Amino acid sequence: MLEKYGHGGDLRTAEEAYGLPAEHFLDYSSNMNPFGPPPAVRQVLAAYADKIDRYPDPAVRGLRTKLAQLHAVDEQSILIGNGAAELIDLVVRQHNPVITGLAYPSFAEYGDAVHKIGGGTLPIPLTEAEQFELSEASLLQSRAADFYMIGSPNNPTGKLVRPELILKLVKQGATVVVDEAFMDFVPDEEAYSLLQEAAVNDRLFVIRSMTKFYAIPGIRLGYIVGEPGNIAELSRLQVPWSVNSLAQLIGEAVLDDEEFAAKTKNWLQEEGPWFADRLWESGLNVYAGAANYVLVRLPEQPGLTAAALQNELGRRGVLIRDASHFTGLDAHYCRFAIKLRPQNERFLAELKGAMAAIHACSGMEGMIE
Amino acid sequence: MLEKYGHGGDLRTAEEAYGLPAEHFLDYSSNMNPFGPPPAVRQVLAAYADKIDRYPDPAVRGLRTKLAQLHAVDEQSILIGNGAAELIDLVVRQHNPVITGLAYPSFAEYGDAVHKIGGGTLPIPLTEAEQFELSEASLLQSRAADFYMIGSPNNPTGKLVRPELILKLVKQGATVVVDEAFMDFVPDEEAYSLLQEAAVNDRLFVIRSMTKFYAIPGIRLGYIVGEPGNIAELSRLQVPWSVNSLAQLIGEAVLDDEEFAAKTKNWLQEEGPWFADRLWESGLNVYAGAANYVLVRLPEQPGLTAAALQNELGRRGVLIRDASHFTGLDAHYCRFAIKLRPQNERFLAELKGAMAAIHACSGMEGMIE
Repeated sequence: MLEKYGHGGDLRTAEEAYGLPAEHFLDYSSNMNPFGPPPAVRQVLAAYADKIDRYPDPAVRGLRTKLAQLHAVDEQSILIGNGAAELIDLVVRQHNPVITGLAYPSFAEYGDAVHKIGGGTLPIPLTEAEQFELSEASLLQSRAADFYMIGSPNNPTGKLVRPELILKLVKQGATVVVDEAFMDFVPDEEAYSLLQEAAVNDRLFVIRSMTKFYAIPGIRLGYIVGEPGNIAELSRLQVPWSVNSLAQLIGEAVLDDEEFAAKTKNWLQEEGPWFADRLWESGLNVYAGAANYVLVRLPEQPGLTAAALQNELGRRGVLIRDASHFTGLDAHYCRFAIKLRPQNERFLAELKGAMAAIHACSGMEGMIE
Repeated sequence: MLEKYGHGGDLRTAEEAYGLPAEHFLDYSSNMNPFGPPPAVRQVLAAYADKIDRYPDPAVRGLRTKLAQLHAVDEQSILIGNGAAELIDLVVRQHNPVITGLAYPSFAEYGDAVHKIGGGTLPIPLTEAEQFELSEASLLQSRAADFYMIGSPNNPTGKLVRPELILKLVKQGATVVVDEAFMDFVPDEEAYSLLQEAAVNDRLFVIRSMTKFYAIPGIRLGYIVGEPGNIAELSRLQVPWSVNSLAQLIGEAVLDDEEFAAKTKNWLQEEGPWFADRLWESGLNVYAGAANYVLVRLPEQPGLTAAALQNELGRRGVLIRDASHFTGLDAHYCRFAIKLRPQNERFLAELKGAMAAIHACSGMEGMIE
């Protein structure tokens, strides 16, 4: 399996499993912007050889100022991190919650971070019957939790969470961390994001990633927004120079590229529905969301599990996420990234081929038995 | 003061304090290899634009294998980190020590990491009378501690610690973390390093940095060596993808450059004593060590403090570390990096000028009073 280390996008494991070099894979297992990094990234890299011998700014002043302006929040409400993963870890360690409410399925890091500090989790099930949407009824049943980590859009479902629901939890006295790692792909993100509210509310945090939208996961970059007192405390827990200087420079450069941002949002609005329709036509159940990936359930067919499909596609140089590793999903769920049209066309062709091959083999096995 | 965030090498603060752009400073406040990064770093950077859109290998397999071969230890004994700072934080959190024995003066991160988890520290004083060498007598007086963090070479003194002393502590039942961040500058490092012993001893850890020797602090890279069971536990505490992919690629590339390593060691063996002699001639007390920096005490002279000298040199575009911020040192101690001959000559000239200017001013003030 590809999820040896719990996540998608692990090309090294793919190389070992399928015997192809990393650059040969069409990677639908990780959710990067398919346009690749904005042009400014190459410019920053070209100049970086002369800067790598200096320490990063320990306070990440340049990028913090820029993000504060972008979001119209106080600089003191922002902490930059070594990827969103560091910030999940920090905010959990800061609160040390006894019971954390977690929707299932969702990003495994929430539960991992909680278990690391010896905390318990209270599952809030997202169900197929409700199209994996977070409902008020399930949330209200989770009163025993005083801390929540909620993805919006959620991973792997892509579903947005209504801000009112989260604010209701906060009003009831809970602390809520909203992971908005994919929010910048959402065209009307202002209607869904709680970032500005988090900047002034001491029981609300919003985590953002810059690695997905700007396609720079290699270098790690994320930030958390919270009330300044909370942010100062988080900052004291953080390791010195946690954010490398290349990430800082790239972060500052890409924020200026408004054309890249517009192009990306336009692409997803068109390509998302098109890709979902083609998947329906291929016989898959699609749970369309707002993000640049899609959760699907494979049709009932002998031998057709997510693991089998991952393996069959892997041999063809195409990587997908076996979503059965997410708590709450069974062996028939996969998560696919959404990419540009030519890639999606190749993907759909390989998907059809792989499903046919599994069908043929399982028929053969039936005959042999 | 330059040490606004507790450390040297903060060029952003220097820009704000002295009104010069970062690239104009001759930075004697941070301890990088003055040759700059090996040529392989530029090659890796040139190719990196096509790799930044992939996740880092979560297990850092390539670099770990290479380091294991280099040091002739088991791969399972090595954990790579986002700079040595992350590993200090992780090993302290893993052990959660009640009382940590710390030599003073030493790297402030040891104490900071211990205080962060609410631990206490037991000071082991290094004295001017003993040339800041760690003595067996002081160590033996620190029996109340069951956990130690010891730098060898120590920062800011540059002094090596005899391995027998550390092994004696371990035999007495203590756990010792040896920070060998500057050990690769030491010509006969095999005689002083405890790295191989740490790989098999479950009460001994060695931390190494790759940022100083290879002049890549911007990108963050370090590793810790310990007994495999301990390393597995540390790895579980670590944040996913903590080590960015550029650091991994650079780490693998620079280890092959044996010429760079030899050149660096040769340079320091010649330049270190020469620089120390010139500083003596300028009237400073020099505590010569084994690393690529030197601790000095300024001569008794009205107005001549480390803070005044830092300020006077900063205005001339030269940065030094005001070592009075190290617990155990007073206002007359500074730490200087050692660089290449032309830089050292300029440094010595500016030092002379700055000392003369302070002398002149303090005379003036005296007259005005």
